Amino acid sequence: MDILKSPLLTDLYQLTMLQGYIEEGLHEEAVFEFYVRQMPENRSFLIAAGLESCLRFLEGMRFSEEELQYLRQTRRFSSALLDYLRDLRFSGDVHALQEGTVFFPNEPLVRVTAPLPIAQLVETRLINILHFETLIATKAARCTLAARGRAALVDFGLRRAHGAEAGLLAARAAYLAGFNGTATVAAEALYGIPIFGTMAHSYIEAHNSEEEAFLNFAGANPDNVTLLIDTYDTVNGAKTAARVADMLAVRGKRVRAVRLDSGDLCELSRAVRSILDEKGYPDIQIFASGNLDEYAIEDLLSRGAPIDGFGVGTRLDTSADVPYLECAYKLIEYAGEPRLKKSSGKATYPGRKQICRLASAERMVQDTICLEGEPPTGTPLIEKVMDKGKRLKNPEDLKTLARNTREQIRSLPASLCDLAGTGPYPVLISKALLHLKEQTERRLG
Amino acid sequence: MDILKSPLLTDLYQLTMLQGYIEEGLHEEAVFEFYVRQMPENRSFLIAAGLESCLRFLEGMRFSEEELQYLRQTRRFSSALLDYLRDLRFSGDVHALQEGTVFFPNEPLVRVTAPLPIAQLVETRLINILHFETLIATKAARCTLAARGRAALVDFGLRRAHGAEAGLLAARAAYLAGFNGTATVAAEALYGIPIFGTMAHSYIEAHNSEEEAFLNFAGANPDNVTLLIDTYDTVNGAKTAARVADMLAVRGKRVRAVRLDSGDLCELSRAVRSILDEKGYPDIQIFASGNLDEYAIEDLLSRGAPIDGFGVGTRLDTSADVPYLECAYKLIEYAGEPRLKKSSGKATYPGRKQICRLASAERMVQDTICLEGEPPTGTPLIEKVMDKGKRLKNPEDLKTLARNTREQIRSLPASLCDLAGTGPYPVLISKALLHLKEQTERRLG
Repeated sequence: MDILKSPLLTDLYQLTMLQGYIEEGLHEEAVFEFYVRQMPENRSFLIAAGLESCLRFLEGMRFSEEELQYLRQTRRFSSALLDYLRDLRFSGDVHALQEGTVFFPNEPLVRVTAPLPIAQLVETRLINILHFETLIATKAARCTLAARGRAALVDFGLRRAHGAEAGLLAARAAYLAGFNGTATVAAEALYGIPIFGTMAHSYIEAHNSEEEAFLNFAGANPDNVTLLIDTYDTVNGAKTAARVADMLAVRGKRVRAVRLDSGDLCELSRAVRSILDEKGYPDIQIFASGNLDEYAIEDLLSRGAPIDGFGVGTRLDTSADVPYLECAYKLIEYAGEPRLKKSSGKATYPGRKQICRLASAERMVQDTICLEGEPPTGTPLIEKVMDKGKRLKNPEDLKTLARNTREQIRSLPASLCDLAGTGPYPVLISKALLHLKEQTERRLG
Repeated sequence: MDILKSPLLTDLYQLTMLQGYIEEGLHEEAVFEFYVRQMPENRSFLIAAGLESCLRFLEGMRFSEEELQYLRQTRRFSSALLDYLRDLRFSGDVHALQEGTVFFPNEPLVRVTAPLPIAQLVETRLINILHFETLIATKAARCTLAARGRAALVDFGLRRAHGAEAGLLAARAAYLAGFNGTATVAAEALYGIPIFGTMAHSYIEAHNSEEEAFLNFAGANPDNVTLLIDTYDTVNGAKTAARVADMLAVRGKRVRAVRLDSGDLCELSRAVRSILDEKGYPDIQIFASGNLDEYAIEDLLSRGAPIDGFGVGTRLDTSADVPYLECAYKLIEYAGEPRLKKSSGKATYPGRKQICRLASAERMVQDTICLEGEPPTGTPLIEKVMDKGKRLKNPEDLKTLARNTREQIRSLPASLCDLAGTGPYPVLISKALLHLKEQTERRLG
């Protein structure tokens, strides 16, 4: 069973509901929208991500014989349901924001239109993908803002990411949101993301001295010599690195960078910079890692730390200060009729929506959430990407999507670019949408 | 490429280091230990988890032709390295704490003994698994403590878990730590974990009325009737559920439970309980979900909320208040010589360790971290589980492991059972280990 593609990546209730839908013949067209309910603290905008992973999942979704056999032997399900699942393919439409687009709470990121059982079944996995990639793209975009184009950013997070898929999707989301690359080899193999990396402390410790470790590493990897200098003492490590650079120079080779991974990175980067400059190596770059996030990057750069690149790991891949978003995949129409939920604190807007964005002097100034088909009050952001289970165009190149994100970030209003910024950014609800909500509530009593 | 088994789930630096090790012939035996560096805030003990997933990864680890081909075409690696990788199998030893064991910072969870390149290569994925399963088992154990055996616990977290593997491993870790089951279908298929679930709000909304939805659901799933009653109004929903129970009774069927998913769960559960009791259904259980964690569970139960079971989702699967642990996989011996790292704030203990635990009146009272082979000062907790790449026994049944956890939690000192409890629990370092650390530091200057 290829578990990452498996339709069993779902909650049991999706299958028990399907059993009900199949029995009753509730096969009419359902429309669900995925959106974020509220802006978390410490965030002032969100970056849409995960669409490509969702489309790939939907395209490939089918129950294998092994999966059907498993379901059968649980004796939980009717043969009508199992027959239905055997033939099931995703035959619906998908409308979505392009990945990398800035968006805000209540604005739908993805809309799925499909026969009710199908649109229902895919809920769990779609949320699972969209929630996480959006969470990380948003965190990564904040790191990009903090680095102000003055330092490179590399994702170092696989080891502390929540499982392997999280590490891979985080590498992708970070690259989408402006990172230069990742340390994760499989992310290059899968997504073509540039990878970076050189050595760990254990490499130094396995040798008899730091100098021996540096020289041997350079011998084996002559084109990629970044030396980790904090295993024993960072300042001594910098001097050793300069000595090694002297020795390599004789062979026509060079040290590209040094990496600091502990201690006071601001102070140490200054000390290391002046040692390297003094020894005649102003071109050896300084790379820093260790418990970094957007706040640490901003702090270091604003204090003038001479750091050329940052490895951002755990706090990026877990989105440590905001480890989840309040989000939902909600039924908004069934059999041509608008639907909503009235539970306290979790009210929803019915109907198929569009987002119209107004800009002025190339900065976004206001969004309106309206009903699809209303006269647009700005640029419409939601487009159809899948029709009856078929993509309308080939997958966008990740580099192209990253360019989209860069432009989106550049168009943020100044009030949202600050790490502490909380807007407010105006998101209006169109009169027609408000009216539909009232009407629907009245209908439901 | 089966990505979850792929040895490319690693950082680039593991491969660049390997290239150095291979070139220099550094193939001697290396020993690495995985441990947690410090206790996070809001935790007073940790639950070991992830060993089985690691052993499965190690047993199956090999480079496929496709993976080798990818590495070759990057032109980053020598043919000596590629030849080495082609033949590579995990041929090392693993020592570990049994899953479900309570442990504390600096106590090694897993020790890997293997030729240096192999022990190095597996670092990233081993940390990735051990860190996450331990994180979630620890969070889940706190929920188990809060539920005090008075309420059932079910993992609802797949949708907000960080990717699919996180959802699956979280279901496993939660079950290991005392949960009754999960909503995730694939977790039953993969791990045999009991699954639970009935209906979502969209099911209700897709019908013309709540009553119609309840009746149709019961028709299609007569043995598993749990009704979600908060879609429009919880108190009305409870009355509808009682009416539906009357109608089902005529057919010899029953409503098993109702579920609340929003609002003031304490107040609503009381109101619902009294409605159900009054209508003659004291046996219909009340199940609650929605933004729950150990704090909410403790609060609800201590206020006497008549809730029989909790669905715990997002905050469990993301370990929301502690989304990561400070942990490391450190070289502690190479070629028979103890090794350590001296970087500020991240010092390590060299040498192969054992943990000895003292108990009194069936409660743990003190641990000592000592060197393997020292006379034990309590029950030794670390055992050998893999020898030269072969398991020493069959995988333990997950139910048996869950029983181990239950016993471990029962043996916690009272001071650690409180959700706010921070110990202190005494973890001593043996004299011999302290001496080895000093010696090693002296040797490294």
